[in-house]
Amino acid sequence: MFESEVLPRVRREAGAVVVARVLPVFGLGESEVARRLDTLMDREREARGEPVVGTTASQGVVSVRIRGRGERGATEAAVGEVERACIAGVGREWILGSGEVSLAECVLGLLRERGGTLAVAESCTGGLLGSMLTEIAGASDVFVGGWVTYSNGMKAAELGVPEEVLSAHGAVSGECARAMAAGALRGSGAGHALSITGVAGPGGGSEEKPVGTVWVGLASAGREPVARRFALKGDRGNVRSWAAQTALGMLRLRLIGREDLALMRQVEG
Amino acid sequence: MFESEVLPRVRREAGAVVVARVLPVFGLGESEVARRLDTLMDREREARGEPVVGTTASQGVVSVRIRGRGERGATEAAVGEVERACIAGVGREWILGSGEVSLAECVLGLLRERGGTLAVAESCTGGLLGSMLTEIAGASDVFVGGWVTYSNGMKAAELGVPEEVLSAHGAVSGECARAMAAGALRGSGAGHALSITGVAGPGGGSEEKPVGTVWVGLASAGREPVARRFALKGDRGNVRSWAAQTALGMLRLRLIGREDLALMRQVEG
Repeated sequence: MFESEVLPRVRREAGAVVVARVLPVFGLGESEVARRLDTLMDREREARGEPVVGTTASQGVVSVRIRGRGERGATEAAVGEVERACIAGVGREWILGSGEVSLAECVLGLLRERGGTLAVAESCTGGLLGSMLTEIAGASDVFVGGWVTYSNGMKAAELGVPEEVLSAHGAVSGECARAMAAGALRGSGAGHALSITGVAGPGGGSEEKPVGTVWVGLASAGREPVARRFALKGDRGNVRSWAAQTALGMLRLRLIGREDLALMRQVEG
Repeated sequence: MFESEVLPRVRREAGAVVVARVLPVFGLGESEVARRLDTLMDREREARGEPVVGTTASQGVVSVRIRGRGERGATEAAVGEVERACIAGVGREWILGSGEVSLAECVLGLLRERGGTLAVAESCTGGLLGSMLTEIAGASDVFVGGWVTYSNGMKAAELGVPEEVLSAHGAVSGECARAMAAGALRGSGAGHALSITGVAGPGGGSEEKPVGTVWVGLASAGREPVARRFALKGDRGNVRSWAAQTALGMLRLRLIGREDLALMRQVEG
């Protein structure tokens, strides 16, 4: 029995390789991703010797993780097949790339491919969006810079946000987000400009605009600026990091021509 | 023996409290802090029942940690005495405050006390300095905003950095850092403006300006702008985070009236 059954199995196991793939997703919640993956996430798959699929989530990015183990050729083929099924299930439009690519890397890559450039205008994130983009070496190819207009005075003076917008709608409004994005586009000469204005908390919330209310504006050369409203969750740090990610997510949808899609936590616009 | 020795000791231990204090230090290296603390860091102190002193370091901040254990009144007195000795040993001018206060919190607090306001102009940090300041709730009291001038075009157009400065000295120069700070002061109307320009890496370094070369500029109303050059270590993320911290450290020295002091890693200016 040892020679006929155990030994071949040990040899097989010893020669086994692990094949792992990751598909980062932005714009859908983890439960929605799981719903779309459906039976691909069944736990019994492992017992049947099939690649297993799981998800992890960090900063709004849900990573679909595929893992197979066995003889190299067969495992790579099986994992590749499962990967294609995952892409079809989740929807290619939500997937940032193949491998551990961040949302900022994905957006910088799309801009590079399309010859686009980007500027930012930040209020409640105070520089975080610019910092996330410039964390990545080589960002200067496509990222030209931006404004941190934390005070209303700077929004008006530097980005040309009309005083009427600030007095009638407040700094946390779609009108202000659009004006900020338009001002950043004009001032930078970039092809695209993102703006963020919101209530990061813990103070500053109201019934109409509770903590977590964030408007993201997007202006692109030759197009009317748009803005979307989001209701983000968590503490000040979470709201800020989600806001920056959401802005990148909005630009990504424009760059891939899928602005018809709504990002997670979008409530208006 | 049990009643005369063990029981009193158990009772003593059971009633013992731990008294801990932390003194965050910025601008000195961990080994320099240890040198200044001298015998206060002796390991034998614990055996003698005296409060112990140790250090931890994170993002350029060295935290001096004091810890005593025993009967409340006596321990608080002993820890208080050791704390005073640590402050005297390290030098009060290097200590950010009492407790886990960050450099950004310390600077925002000093600005608030003095009725000052702050703007920033960032190149290689790309928004990180603004992000560190606005991470703290209530920053809007004293932080008005800033510019992320990642491209030379934006440095010239938004901050008025003269083209001659960029062509003769380059963007990573004391001249550029001073012009950026002066432009941010002028454009924001703030009382102080910090600028950062440097080579974060991994590319972009040269023999004259290797990766980690960072100039920090500081302009204050009614004073000539100044700049200091630093040689920072580590990867892109480290250089960026050190650069932002160093800028805050420079402003802190101005606010406490100790610009005569050189910060760690300063090589010029």
